[in-house]
Amino acid sequence: LNEIDNLLPFKDHFLYNILNPRSIAVFGANNDLLGTMGSMQLRNIIAGGGLDGNIFPIHPRLDTVQGIKAYKSILDLPLTPDLAFLILPTKVVPTVMEECGQKGVKNLLITSGGFREVGGEGITLSQQIDSIAKRYNMRFIGPNCLGIYNGWYGFPNIKNANLNTLWVYETPERGNISIASQSGTIATQLSWYANELGVKIGKSVSVGNEENIDITDFLEYYQKDPQTEVIGLYIEEIKRGKDFMRLAKEIVPCKPVIAIYAGGTEASTRSIMSHTGSIAGNQRIFDTVFKETGIISTNSIMDFLYYLRTFSFAQKYNVYPKGEKVAIVSDSGGAGAMMTKSLELKGLKVPEFSQELKSKFLAKIPSTANANNPIDVTFHDDFFALIYKFPELLIKSGEVDSVIVFGIYDLDEFMEIIESSGMKIEEPMKLIKDTIPLTVLKPIKKLMQKYSVPVFYVGPLPYRYPWNKIIINSEIPLFSMWDQPTNCLAALTHYSIAFRNKK
Amino acid sequence: LNEIDNLLPFKDHFLYNILNPRSIAVFGANNDLLGTMGSMQLRNIIAGGGLDGNIFPIHPRLDTVQGIKAYKSILDLPLTPDLAFLILPTKVVPTVMEECGQKGVKNLLITSGGFREVGGEGITLSQQIDSIAKRYNMRFIGPNCLGIYNGWYGFPNIKNANLNTLWVYETPERGNISIASQSGTIATQLSWYANELGVKIGKSVSVGNEENIDITDFLEYYQKDPQTEVIGLYIEEIKRGKDFMRLAKEIVPCKPVIAIYAGGTEASTRSIMSHTGSIAGNQRIFDTVFKETGIISTNSIMDFLYYLRTFSFAQKYNVYPKGEKVAIVSDSGGAGAMMTKSLELKGLKVPEFSQELKSKFLAKIPSTANANNPIDVTFHDDFFALIYKFPELLIKSGEVDSVIVFGIYDLDEFMEIIESSGMKIEEPMKLIKDTIPLTVLKPIKKLMQKYSVPVFYVGPLPYRYPWNKIIINSEIPLFSMWDQPTNCLAALTHYSIAFRNKK
Repeated sequence: LNEIDNLLPFKDHFLYNILNPRSIAVFGANNDLLGTMGSMQLRNIIAGGGLDGNIFPIHPRLDTVQGIKAYKSILDLPLTPDLAFLILPTKVVPTVMEECGQKGVKNLLITSGGFREVGGEGITLSQQIDSIAKRYNMRFIGPNCLGIYNGWYGFPNIKNANLNTLWVYETPERGNISIASQSGTIATQLSWYANELGVKIGKSVSVGNEENIDITDFLEYYQKDPQTEVIGLYIEEIKRGKDFMRLAKEIVPCKPVIAIYAGGTEASTRSIMSHTGSIAGNQRIFDTVFKETGIISTNSIMDFLYYLRTFSFAQKYNVYPKGEKVAIVSDSGGAGAMMTKSLELKGLKVPEFSQELKSKFLAKIPSTANANNPIDVTFHDDFFALIYKFPELLIKSGEVDSVIVFGIYDLDEFMEIIESSGMKIEEPMKLIKDTIPLTVLKPIKKLMQKYSVPVFYVGPLPYRYPWNKIIINSEIPLFSMWDQPTNCLAALTHYSIAFRNKK
Repeated sequence: LNEIDNLLPFKDHFLYNILNPRSIAVFGANNDLLGTMGSMQLRNIIAGGGLDGNIFPIHPRLDTVQGIKAYKSILDLPLTPDLAFLILPTKVVPTVMEECGQKGVKNLLITSGGFREVGGEGITLSQQIDSIAKRYNMRFIGPNCLGIYNGWYGFPNIKNANLNTLWVYETPERGNISIASQSGTIATQLSWYANELGVKIGKSVSVGNEENIDITDFLEYYQKDPQTEVIGLYIEEIKRGKDFMRLAKEIVPCKPVIAIYAGGTEASTRSIMSHTGSIAGNQRIFDTVFKETGIISTNSIMDFLYYLRTFSFAQKYNVYPKGEKVAIVSDSGGAGAMMTKSLELKGLKVPEFSQELKSKFLAKIPSTANANNPIDVTFHDDFFALIYKFPELLIKSGEVDSVIVFGIYDLDEFMEIIESSGMKIEEPMKLIKDTIPLTVLKPIKKLMQKYSVPVFYVGPLPYRYPWNKIIINSEIPLFSMWDQPTNCLAALTHYSIAFRNKK
């Protein structure tokens, strides 16, 4: 037990118990899993597997909810649950909170909306739940939130379980990324793409109106949390500016922070007002916040996902480029030229190689190819050279700080088409896919770690193709299409130079 | 026959015969479909289906190539082919061109590289093939190109055939988009994504070094071609600047042109020099060209694909927004706020609705939702309202020029998960997917056409999900994730105001 406690010094933080409750009462779930939000959320809690036997649906009429014994009131429970979860009509919330207080519940998640974000009576209701919480010494996330996903629920005591109070049904694969979001959608609806791209999210929290617990609390928690190595934020406003700035400045050099700020324009500010009741600041203030703290910001949801993945890899394997010199090796002149332009526009360099390095390549590529940087191997049937030997040569040359390889296809697809055209493929060739993790991906990852030179692989096929899946499953940065590798490499390099490999 | 001739006035253009040859001689193909480029290209020609019996492989040793009788020399052929296709070592090219000239061949595609792009002797070889072509009055695409894809091969006489001399193996679904590219990759390797996103490409040409036929020739051809309604260009240099400008100014108001210019930075210029031997201009010149002609330009390959798809839809169904006022209806406050900000940053407006329109919505959405623009319906189980009734109300209101709907999921996936959780789904619900094309997609497309108000659908799932596929197959603009809808709507609106719906 002592060992575990040493591993998890963050257990003292009040959010630890909210993210790792040993029992939960759920208000507002029934058996309609298509039309009732609370039911969908309860389904996800059940599916998480860690709370078996300690989930307590509260329902005024039903005896069982989703196969679990239900209680009429929280006061009837045989124990005091660690967490109460309210997905109820707005007006019932204060009464239920009172009962939770009487029962001795200390932590709540409140999904119900209709508070300060609707104005008028909603503001009165907000004040009411604040004072109830104060009276009973309770903490709560929300209202107007989806709650929490903790892929590390109960770890290391409990294995392969999660706690997911969010809706939608898709759950991300857990990893070193933690998200805190003032939008439920950004906390949860990224899951499909995250799983497609290999973005491994360990924790994700929808903070809602932040009536009691705010995004800065989570920043503080994620700072201490050894399971968190990269932080993603979706921001509509920041309530405790000074605390946020102080924390962010401490965190960023150790754990990169990626942020979206959604306010700053006329209609977006209005939209935010009615979304979480926040008063969005202006863009210039946030630009300053991001610049002073080193937080990496974007307005693009795809950038957000890709940056999270990029830094997740860099943190986990400690692969940070030492400078801005990039080598591109490509079987396509056009993609090579486009990436080169993109990198230069983003402040990186694609320098010419030394004569010595050039001649090493010229000996290995067709006579019509060229060994300037980018190296355009043109049509080239030595796939192993393109994806392993060439990057190896570049890494060991010491002439560049990172490498982009364009030319990842799905050879199984090619072979299938070739066979359907009546030609024969030799048996060993058909097994090549299964050997790639050992013959290419593992050694290239070792090289990346040894030299701290990232290698980004790029191809023109959607992620769903099996060869792409194999590379993603090996946790090697793979990019479908050639926009994002340059975006991500620029973000990674600028961060690395600022905080990791100071010149 | 007269009718067909009227339909196809562009048949007189010299490129018509190159794109629609009735017979083809192929040099440089054998039976190795994995390691020899020419073999892969021949495979695609055979698979196209339209030239059955009129493909003539030329090979010094083999009697048959890919199951087709081969000839030792073009001089041995029983007829003069309409097109000769050379994928040969550089030094053999002049000799083979001579023989083609003697045989009376008038059109060639030359894939072989090693000409001006390698400098030195390559320049001499370039001059040599120029003078052979002149002597025999031959036209050729290339060298250093992949050739042509014509999804409309022989249309309307020949149905369901294509001519595809390009490599890779994936072929796009044909439509009203035509591409001319100074990169083989951009001409062909977009196919996987194009098919994933529903980008329907009818013609795609890799022009290579443009020794004899250039991108401006294709612009001229696409202008006349009734099968072309949107044009995509990948540009490293423009050889005939004045002709290009004159043509582009004529074409853009009728057929939108989307362009990538890959030069303009230091290393990208070097990379282009060794790619096609072009001397790339500077960025400022190209910015001026794009501004003066109305060509829509981007440095992003995903933008390129999405813009092509957006204009393909707008052209085919004549749906151009009349102004910059956008309505957003969303089940997510966060995605709504992000799209709102994005639209405003790109010069569009997300205006508040009239009280009358607001109250119509307030009657239909939950009390915790709001009817400002964006309309945040919050959690809402009336999927039909979200995807049909609400956009209909917005279109008919006359208060906005375009509509974005966020909240497309795959209900079949939900139902599967719900059933796996032991709940029952009613049978009619399970069939809903199959009814969507008739109950939602067809009527919404009619509304879009009648009012010239585009509706863009957006959801968080990758395109591969069946519900997404159904919407894409109905040729309705569907976007996976919420970055691209605002990009595309901005490009569409700015073009529409400039050229289609002048104020």
